Amino acid sequence: MEFSLEQVAQLLNGSVEGDGSLKVSRLDKIQEGKPGGISFLANEKYVPYLYETEATAVIVSEDFAPQRKVNAALIRVKNAYTAFTDLLTAYEQLSQQELSGVEEPSYCGEGTQVGEGVYRAAFSYIGRNCSIGDGVKIYPHAYIGDGVKIGAGTIIRAGAKLCKEVIVGAYCDIHEGAVIGSDGFGFAPQDDGSYKAIPQIGQVILGDHVRIGANTTVDRATMGATRIEEGAKIDNLVQLAHNVVVGAHTVIAAQAGVSGSSTLGKNCVIAGQAGIVGHLNLADRTTVGASTGISKSVNKPGTTLFGYMGMDLKGFLKAYAIFKKLPELQEKVKELEKKA
Amino acid sequence: MEFSLEQVAQLLNGSVEGDGSLKVSRLDKIQEGKPGGISFLANEKYVPYLYETEATAVIVSEDFAPQRKVNAALIRVKNAYTAFTDLLTAYEQLSQQELSGVEEPSYCGEGTQVGEGVYRAAFSYIGRNCSIGDGVKIYPHAYIGDGVKIGAGTIIRAGAKLCKEVIVGAYCDIHEGAVIGSDGFGFAPQDDGSYKAIPQIGQVILGDHVRIGANTTVDRATMGATRIEEGAKIDNLVQLAHNVVVGAHTVIAAQAGVSGSSTLGKNCVIAGQAGIVGHLNLADRTTVGASTGISKSVNKPGTTLFGYMGMDLKGFLKAYAIFKKLPELQEKVKELEKKA
Amino acid sequence: MEFSLEQVAQLLNGSVEGDGSLKVSRLDKIQEGKPGGISFLANEKYVPYLYETEATAVIVSEDFAPQRKVNAALIRVKNAYTAFTDLLTAYEQLSQQELSGVEEPSYCGEGTQVGEGVYRAAFSYIGRNCSIGDGVKIYPHAYIGDGVKIGAGTIIRAGAKLCKEVIVGAYCDIHEGAVIGSDGFGFAPQDDGSYKAIPQIGQVILGDHVRIGANTTVDRATMGATRIEEGAKIDNLVQLAHNVVVGAHTVIAAQAGVSGSSTLGKNCVIAGQAGIVGHLNLADRTTVGASTGISKSVNKPGTTLFGYMGMDLKGFLKAYAIFKKLPELQEKVKELEKKA
Repeated sequence: MEFSLEQVAQLLNGSVEGDGSLKVSRLDKIQEGKPGGISFLANEKYVPYLYETEATAVIVSEDFAPQRKVNAALIRVKNAYTAFTDLLTAYEQLSQQELSGVEEPSYCGEGTQVGEGVYRAAFSYIGRNCSIGDGVKIYPHAYIGDGVKIGAGTIIRAGAKLCKEVIVGAYCDIHEGAVIGSDGFGFAPQDDGSYKAIPQIGQVILGDHVRIGANTTVDRATMGATRIEEGAKIDNLVQLAHNVVVGAHTVIAAQAGVSGSSTLGKNCVIAGQAGIVGHLNLADRTTVGASTGISKSVNKPGTTLFGYMGMDLKGFLKAYAIFKKLPELQEKVKELEKKA
Repeated sequence: MEFSLEQVAQLLNGSVEGDGSLKVSRLDKIQEGKPGGISFLANEKYVPYLYETEATAVIVSEDFAPQRKVNAALIRVKNAYTAFTDLLTAYEQLSQQELSGVEEPSYCGEGTQVGEGVYRAAFSYIGRNCSIGDGVKIYPHAYIGDGVKIGAGTIIRAGAKLCKEVIVGAYCDIHEGAVIGSDGFGFAPQDDGSYKAIPQIGQVILGDHVRIGANTTVDRATMGATRIEEGAKIDNLVQLAHNVVVGAHTVIAAQAGVSGSSTLGKNCVIAGQAGIVGHLNLADRTTVGASTGISKSVNKPGTTLFGYMGMDLKGFLKAYAIFKKLPELQEKVKELEKKA
Repeated sequence: MEFSLEQVAQLLNGSVEGDGSLKVSRLDKIQEGKPGGISFLANEKYVPYLYETEATAVIVSEDFAPQRKVNAALIRVKNAYTAFTDLLTAYEQLSQQELSGVEEPSYCGEGTQVGEGVYRAAFSYIGRNCSIGDGVKIYPHAYIGDGVKIGAGTIIRAGAKLCKEVIVGAYCDIHEGAVIGSDGFGFAPQDDGSYKAIPQIGQVILGDHVRIGANTTVDRATMGATRIEEGAKIDNLVQLAHNVVVGAHTVIAAQAGVSGSSTLGKNCVIAGQAGIVGHLNLADRTTVGASTGISKSVNKPGTTLFGYMGMDLKGFLKAYAIFKKLPELQEKVKELEKKA
C-alpha cells in the first residue's frame, strides 16, 4: 500500500507543505523516520528530531513554526496527535484482512445460535445454548462455555475464556488468555481448620465497548453479577474479584487488583499494580496512583490517592520527602536532647 | 426448577414463618430480591434491606426478631449463613449438568490410563503414560503433559496446563489458564555476563482438595518437588516459585507471590499482592497483610505481619500514623531548634 | 538409566573417593538423599547434611575437607555447583524424549514455511505466511498468528500465544500461556469522557536465547517495536508494555511490570513485583529490589534501588529503620517540647 502525501492530507483534512506527489507506505516514529515513512510531531520534547528525521513527511499542527530547515515535507492539520491516530486507524483497517467463516476443526454445542459474518477459528470451542452476535470474531483456542451471550462485533482473541453464562456486550475486545467468569474465591472455614468452597452461582456482565487485557481474570459473582460497565478499559494481568463493579469508562492499568464486592465509579483511573481491598466504594473520577493500596472508601469525586495506604497525593509526597531524610531528623532530635 | 418454602425449610432443617406453599426458583441478594427469589440475612449491616426486599422469602437465624413489618416469608434456621451456603451447594448440584464422555476431536497419548466417568472435552490434550482417576473432568484446551497423575474427582478447567510429571491429588479444582509445573526460574551466570538455564528436573505435587486459581503459575522444582499440601486454596494470578512448599489449608489471595524454596506453614493466610522472598519459613497460622513484603522467616505461630517490609501489624499502623504527619513532626523539631 | 560413579566422575572431569563401581540413577538434594542418588555440596550451610545423607555419592569441591566420617562416596571436582548443573543438563538431555513430527489435528495456514525437524503438536495453530525455523518445538494449544517468524531451535510451550507479525529469535523458550504481541494499552480520551482505542500497529521483536515465563504478557508497540534483546530472562506473570526495550542479559523476576516506552539497559536485575513507570531509562546493570517502584530514570550504571519510590538501598534501609521506631521519635519530641 502506497499513498501520495496529497492523498494523506485529504484524508486528514490538512494541507501539504512540500511535494504532494511523494509517496509513503509506512508509519514511523519521528526519531526512527526513514524514507517512505510518515511521522507526526505533537509533543515539544520531540521537536529536535524534526530537523534530523529521514521520514518523507511529518504531520504537524497548523500553527507550528519550525526554527530551522526541515528536510521532510510537512502535512499541516488542526491537531497533529488526533490526525495521527486517525491515520493509524485507517492503516489498521486497510492492513487487517477480514476474518470470517469457519476453520476446521472447530466445536459448537447444541442449541447455540450464531449470527452472520462470524469468524470461528480452528480449535475454537463454543458450548451449548450460547448466542453469538453478528460479526463476532472467535480466534483459535477461544473457549466459550454453556449459555454465554456475546454482542455484535465483539472480538474474542486467542485462548480467551468466557465461562458459563457470561454476558458480553457489543464491540468488546477480549484479549488473549483472559479468563472471564472463573469461580470467585470464597470459602467457609470448617471446625477442623479446613475450608469448604462456597458455590459461586452468579454471573459476569460486560457492557458494550469493554476492553479486557491479556491474561486478566474476572471472577463470577457469588450471587448476582460482577459488572464491568460500558466503555471500561482493563489492561493485562488485572484481577477483578467476585461481585466487583467497574463503572463506565473507568481505566485499570496492568497488574492492579480489586478485591471482592468493591465498586468503582465512572471515569476512574487505577494505575498499575494498585490494590483495592474488598467492600469499598470509589467515587466517580477517583485516581489511584501506581502500586497504591486503598483500604477505605472514597466519597469525594475527583480525589487522587497515592502511597502505601492510599493517602492524598500531596500529603504522601510531603511525608515521603521527610521519610527519605528521617536519619537527619533523628539526628536533630538527638542534638536537642543533648542540649536539654 | 421450583421449590416450595416448605421444601426449602425441610432441606435446611428449619421452619417457615409465613405461607409455606409459596414457590421460589432463584437465589437473590437481599438488596436485589425480587418475587420468586429467596435471600438470606446473616450480617447486621443488611437488616434494613429485610424490610424493603421484594424477595419471596428470607432465611434468618432462629432468634432473629424483626423490628418492623416484613413482607417476605421467613425461614428460620440455626445459622442463616451456613444454611444459605448449603442451599447454594444444593442449587449448584441441581443446575450442573453432569459432564462425562469424550467430545471429539480430543487427544490421548500412548500408555495413558483413563478411569471411569471421565469427561474429556473437545481439544483437550493428554500426553503419554498418564494416569487419570475416576470422575475427572477435563475441559476444552486443557493440556496434560507426559507422565502426569490426576486423582479421582479432580476438575481441570478450560486451558489449564499440567506440565510433564505433575502429580495432582483427588478432588482438586484447577482453574482456567493455570500453569502447574512450568520450569523454575534458575540461571547460572556465565563469565561473559550471560546466563545459562539450570535444568529444572523436579516435580510439582498437589495434595487432595487443593484449589488453584485462574492464570496462576506454579513452577516445578529444580530438584525434588514444589508441594501444595491438602486443602490449600490459591486464588488467581498467584506465583509460586520452584521448591516452594505451601502447608495444608493455607489460603493465598490473588496476585501474591512466593519466591523460590520458601516454606509456608499450615493454615496461613496470605492476602492479595503480598510478596514473600526466597528461602524463608513462615510458621503455622501466619497472617500476611495485603501488599505486604516478607523478607525474614516467621518463627512464632499465629503472627500477623503488615507493611512494606512486614512489620507486626500494630507497630506498622502506629508508625504509619506518624508517617502521615511527618511534616508536623518536622515542624516541631524546627521550632525546638529555634528555641534552643 | 544407571551410571557408575566412575562414569559420572569422567563426565565431570573429577575423581572418585570411594567405590567407583557403585551405581546411581537419580539426582537428590543432599538433605533428601537416598541410596541410588547422587547429591552435591556447594553451600557451607549444607555441610551438616553431608554426614547424614543416605545418598550413594556426593559431589564436592577438590579442596573440601570433611570434619567427620562420611558414608557417601565423594566425587571431587573443580566447582561442585557448576559440575552439578552440568549433570542436571546431561540428565535432562537423556531423559527428554525427542519431540518431532506432526500430531493431528493441527492447523497450518497458507504461505507458511516450516523448517526441518519441527514438532507441531495436536491442536497447535499456525497462521498464514509464517516462517518456522529448523528444530522448533510447538506444543499443544500454542497459537502463532499470521506473519510470525520463529528462529531455529526455539520452544513454544503449551498454550503460548505469538500474535501477528511477532519476531522471535533462535533458541528462545516461550513458556506456557505467555502472550507476546497483544495490543498495547493506549486510548485517546474523547470529549464525552469515553476512550477510543489507538490502533497498535507495531511489533514485538525477541532476540536469540530469550526466555519468557508462564502467563507473562508482552504488548506490541504502538508503532515501531517492543524489543527484548539477546539472552534476557523473564519470569512468570510479568507485564512488559508497548514500546518497552529490555536490554541484553537483563533478568526480570515474577510479577514485575514495566510501563510503556521505558528502556532497561543490559544486565539489569529487576526483582519480583517491582514496578517501573513509563518513559524512563535504566542504565546498564541497574538492580531494582523486590516490590520497589521506580519513577525516575537511572543514569549511573550499577545503581541499586529499593523501597516504595525507589531510593538507594542503604538510604532506604536507614530511613525504614527509623520509620519502625517513629513512635519513639515522636515521644522524644513531645518530651523536648514539654521541657522547652
